[in-house]
Amino acid sequence: MIPTPSTQPGPAGAADLVADPLRFGVGARVTVAVMSDRYAEVILGALAGVATDGLVVDTGDVSTYVGGHEADLLRYLTDLVDAVAATGEHAAVTLHLSRGCPGEVVCELPGGAGPRAVALPPGRRTGRSGAAEWALYPLADDVRAGVEPDHMRDIEAAIDLARTTGTFRGSEHFVTRLEGDVGALVETVVGAWARVGRGVQHVTSHVTVSLNSPTRSRG
Amino acid sequence: MIPTPSTQPGPAGAADLVADPLRFGVGARVTVAVMSDRYAEVILGALAGVATDGLVVDTGDVSTYVGGHEADLLRYLTDLVDAVAATGEHAAVTLHLSRGCPGEVVCELPGGAGPRAVALPPGRRTGRSGAAEWALYPLADDVRAGVEPDHMRDIEAAIDLARTTGTFRGSEHFVTRLEGDVGALVETVVGAWARVGRGVQHVTSHVTVSLNSPTRSRG
Repeated sequence: MIPTPSTQPGPAGAADLVADPLRFGVGARVTVAVMSDRYAEVILGALAGVATDGLVVDTGDVSTYVGGHEADLLRYLTDLVDAVAATGEHAAVTLHLSRGCPGEVVCELPGGAGPRAVALPPGRRTGRSGAAEWALYPLADDVRAGVEPDHMRDIEAAIDLARTTGTFRGSEHFVTRLEGDVGALVETVVGAWARVGRGVQHVTSHVTVSLNSPTRSRG
Repeated sequence: MIPTPSTQPGPAGAADLVADPLRFGVGARVTVAVMSDRYAEVILGALAGVATDGLVVDTGDVSTYVGGHEADLLRYLTDLVDAVAATGEHAAVTLHLSRGCPGEVVCELPGGAGPRAVALPPGRRTGRSGAAEWALYPLADDVRAGVEPDHMRDIEAAIDLARTTGTFRGSEHFVTRLEGDVGALVETVVGAWARVGRGVQHVTSHVTVSLNSPTRSRG
């Protein structure tokens, strides 16, 4: 819950920990809320067509945990949001991404074991659009390990990516508003999270995506 | 979006900034997703009975922003979640709380202006229950202002409160699971966020609450 690495120096084998996405705690929690009486059928139908190759998936009553490599998460989350959008039903999809803090109340990975640098393929474009509110947190867990956060660098990396993907629409209280192809939305969020993670071990991101909104259609 | 206070020392009048909830950036973004064909009617009906006294409310297509004193937010969010639960419809409510970082891409409040200490009244009990997944982020924006984060202290304060309210159920990937009366859930989340904020200027929290879940009823 609360990001709290131990403060010991990195363990022997830290490079192996960083290289393994599951041991580095790379994953997402996803909540799909479909605003229809047929919500169970719609969600199950959308999920049935989405490949989970390379990922660990554990579905609960509040969210589904998905763990694995960032590139697999990018593909899975793009396919999932696209599949929900394709149903035509109004839906809210909440994504919570985390990397660099496996474990639970106390991170099992010491500060300073990371960061982890990965290259991501470009995101897919789906032809379906949505709107999102996005928060990104580079967490300064490793201050005591001598890694000082550089938030300006992190902001610039994230905003650059949102401008490159064409999704950036502006800032609101506590969040950045994104709009566009749902593939571009997911690429922005996953890409910025991974990019900021090149310099910071523990990075989380929370985004709420609205699909097929009647408010927007009327607007 | 990304927490980035300026790094100048606190301004003249910092105490006034801290005392004013809106200038300190105290608020929440709320998304209510009701899984029913009647979602618009259900949401509007639930909202109609919830008093917004003391709060600034701005409804968008992805979420509703609510700004004001922590005690008013506690009351409003308790009443709102209770009203949605009372409809009997399956719903997911996503709450994003923030304090200590007004403004948008770059915080307008310099690191070191806070923290802000407030006393909250006890939360109300509603007689309706739910399950939640909770993340709490004490953000180390003011490292350069000489305020070093103490995550163990923050964890202990948050877990203590979850145990006191009886909502703590355990840890899962990236989140803490809470269950119980929806009033106790909201009291835990708002209370821990405010309590951690006694020692850290910028604190955010994200929680997804599941109401009237058919999965849980069957379980």
